[in-house]
Amino acid sequence: MPETVLVIGGGPAGLEAARSVAAIGGRAILVERRGVLGGTPDESSYAALTPRMGSAQDALDELRAGVADPAIDVRLETLVTGCSGSVGDFSVSLSGPGGESSERVGAIVVATGFQHFDPGRETQMYGYYEYPDVITLPDAEKMLKEHTFVRPSTGEPPRNVAFIQCVGSRDRRIGNEYCSKVCCGVASKEAIEIRRLLPDTKVYIFYIDMRMYGYWENEIYWPAQEQYNVTYIRGIVTEIVGKDGRLLMKGEDTTMGRPLEVLMDVIVLSVGMEPSRGTRDVAGILGVDQNKYGFIATPGEPMDPVSTSVPGIFVAGAAAGPKDLEDTIGMAGSAAIRAVAAVRGQAPAQPAAAR
Amino acid sequence: MPETVLVIGGGPAGLEAARSVAAIGGRAILVERRGVLGGTPDESSYAALTPRMGSAQDALDELRAGVADPAIDVRLETLVTGCSGSVGDFSVSLSGPGGESSERVGAIVVATGFQHFDPGRETQMYGYYEYPDVITLPDAEKMLKEHTFVRPSTGEPPRNVAFIQCVGSRDRRIGNEYCSKVCCGVASKEAIEIRRLLPDTKVYIFYIDMRMYGYWENEIYWPAQEQYNVTYIRGIVTEIVGKDGRLLMKGEDTTMGRPLEVLMDVIVLSVGMEPSRGTRDVAGILGVDQNKYGFIATPGEPMDPVSTSVPGIFVAGAAAGPKDLEDTIGMAGSAAIRAVAAVRGQAPAQPAAAR
Repeated sequence: MPETVLVIGGGPAGLEAARSVAAIGGRAILVERRGVLGGTPDESSYAALTPRMGSAQDALDELRAGVADPAIDVRLETLVTGCSGSVGDFSVSLSGPGGESSERVGAIVVATGFQHFDPGRETQMYGYYEYPDVITLPDAEKMLKEHTFVRPSTGEPPRNVAFIQCVGSRDRRIGNEYCSKVCCGVASKEAIEIRRLLPDTKVYIFYIDMRMYGYWENEIYWPAQEQYNVTYIRGIVTEIVGKDGRLLMKGEDTTMGRPLEVLMDVIVLSVGMEPSRGTRDVAGILGVDQNKYGFIATPGEPMDPVSTSVPGIFVAGAAAGPKDLEDTIGMAGSAAIRAVAAVRGQAPAQPAAAR
Repeated sequence: MPETVLVIGGGPAGLEAARSVAAIGGRAILVERRGVLGGTPDESSYAALTPRMGSAQDALDELRAGVADPAIDVRLETLVTGCSGSVGDFSVSLSGPGGESSERVGAIVVATGFQHFDPGRETQMYGYYEYPDVITLPDAEKMLKEHTFVRPSTGEPPRNVAFIQCVGSRDRRIGNEYCSKVCCGVASKEAIEIRRLLPDTKVYIFYIDMRMYGYWENEIYWPAQEQYNVTYIRGIVTEIVGKDGRLLMKGEDTTMGRPLEVLMDVIVLSVGMEPSRGTRDVAGILGVDQNKYGFIATPGEPMDPVSTSVPGIFVAGAAAGPKDLEDTIGMAGSAAIRAVAAVRGQAPAQPAAAR
């Protein structure tokens, strides 16, 4: 029925969007490609949330409970395979465990998220696929979720650990010029967790700019330095090579203006965000414009961060680009309101301040 | 009538919250202390919006048009003077041009915003109240709105201009440890505008970290450097003194590791955000907790950025701390949904993931 909103993606953005639609009296179909709800925080085993270290598991459980509502029809292991029609009356094809089906919906919220940058694809210089002790933020998160942090090559605790920021972000060579927004906070959070687990381990973060915006400054950045003795070094890492079973990190300390050559036991690459395959696929199926990075374009920014190029189709969360959890929850609310208004025919003729 | 949502503050957050409440079939009373709607962007004469340089005037006009709705009762020159009751049935006292009145509302959205840090209060070292050519971001914005940029002391175009970042932010001495989030973007936007107006003027930005998160990196930071030749210098400015009718800026270039002493014609202090008087006053009247900086506390972050310590009272925009316009619009949508759900008794018993 066209009174329904289709929400594509069962991560934080999609869960909050569907919950919000139901909270204001609307109906939603929530489609998720995997067999469980939770999205990337679930799939990548997030442990503690930035900045307040709350349990990701508890937060996801609460988001999942929010869609246990008779007004929300949750379809797991389901993909959107086609779409026609326009605002107020879209016809979408779904492919799920029960076969193909077609649904009529009045509006659509795209919440297909991001994927972590794969450091093996282009940046062979960091040796992610060569050295087992070179890992990524989500690899580290997986260990921290099990309350452990070891050198993958030996299973022993590392004596020192370095995070390298902006891997796959702020990098013109690979085409990702944008900043991925959350990696400074996530790396600092993981650094604190490592220091809590292993008080004798030294932890370094090599960065260009520490983007600890808003309260992340006082809630993570200062405690990381003052309570947990995490060492922040403004510098550029150019190369990692194996040496005597450890990792030799070469680069430049740009504050001290001198070359940098240090041995590390574990190096964590702070990989950024790229559009997920789901985001790229769904954009094509729905016919919404993508920006040059492949994320869903939102031409009405900053006054309208959720309208896409197609009336009646909205976007929430990291499907539109790098977003933190607060951005995602806010966007989900905004998208839900605009979607329900579109369904009810109360939408303004064009997105607000689309310029 | 308790079915109504009271929105306090007629800036972007309040306008979008009221519009959103009406868009989903609710009713709102929108209270604004001034005689016009638009909030700080109007009061401080914002010209172009960060990052896309859209007209602030157009955006405000569109937000104002959004509340021209029979479901929204706009009360200008009106203050909230008292509040009792609880979620679903608050009784609020309003004081406006027609005298005192009392209204029953089901939920409240606080959208009372921020004020720009006053650099004269504590940081006499920058000489804001001593030298007319030391100005602030909003002072610069006011000139740019008139399509001009001059030395206030002479009325002539400056040969060189310096922005100093983090004035009133990231500063423990004055108690504002947080980062104000938007000043890096706003300063860079103004720098571009100055370079467009005055192609012969050199523009410098002195910073600790350039926090150009997300797309601000590729939409402002790179163009500022590559297309507009704005010079970014990582450094600390310790003192400004008058010399031969110009301003001698002393400090340290921390990348080059050398002292800095340069003459400037105009120095722009990138002042941060503090809670507005309205935010402080309204927090007291409503009895909602404030954080240690005086902003409205949001204990459910990051999964619930809008619930306050009092059920049925929500916050949107910079009343809760440093926010950009996208944050503000997202929060307004989220707050509107939760407020309407609370009014209709569909609210969850407690804020989502409040930990």
